[in-house]
Amino acid sequence: MIARTPAPPYWAVIFTSRRTDADADGYAAMAAAMAEMAARQPGYLGVESARGTDGVGVTVSYWASEEAMRAWKHVAAHVGAQRAGRERWYADYVTRIARVERDYRMADSPRVGL
Amino acid sequence: MIARTPAPPYWAVIFTSRRTDADADGYAAMAAAMAEMAARQPGYLGVESARGTDGVGVTVSYWASEEAMRAWKHVAAHVGAQRAGRERWYADYVTRIARVERDYRMADSPRVGL
Repeated sequence: MIARTPAPPYWAVIFTSRRTDADADGYAAMAAAMAEMAARQPGYLGVESARGTDGVGVTVSYWASEEAMRAWKHVAAHVGAQRAGRERWYADYVTRIARVERDYRMADSPRVGL
Repeated sequence: MIARTPAPPYWAVIFTSRRTDADADGYAAMAAAMAEMAARQPGYLGVESARGTDGVGVTVSYWASEEAMRAWKHVAAHVGAQRAGRERWYADYVTRIARVERDYRMADSPRVGL
């Protein structure tokens, strides 16, 4: 799904990862639980996520403020998931914290010939 | 692949899209050509991309400056690809322009028990 975020500015956590082959079921269960828990956090604006057949995934979550991002980072269940990620599920990852300054939607684009 | 970006700050173009079922071969060829062309642009820092089986893809390209992002947006071949994307390949998309403020890598993380 494409997140229905409000007008910028807001914040993005860009999480790019490469999965190990380990524990696909455990990983899927934890990912679903974390997605559900994140969506209940104050300041959560949405998430977009994809993983290709090469094992590389990009997940971007959107947040109203730095405080909201930080609070989610430190939720106890999420801290546990992050540790399990490092120990079992991810061969590599990078987390980038970014401030979204502007956006463009397909619906806003000029249609040639229309 | 996970992009080997320099220390922040730098810029990110977060492009989230949902593919139509149309023209998979044409799309793949254009995506490969654009990735190759982007990588030769001044200020290009890397790209990360994934598309799941649900047709949703997240591609994040990283740039040294706003000028570098803007220059790539207006390269003629890329403008043509964007138009073809709107007309044929994408059912929906959002482009977000964001300034990366900080990052965390797996290699930097504390390992419990190590």
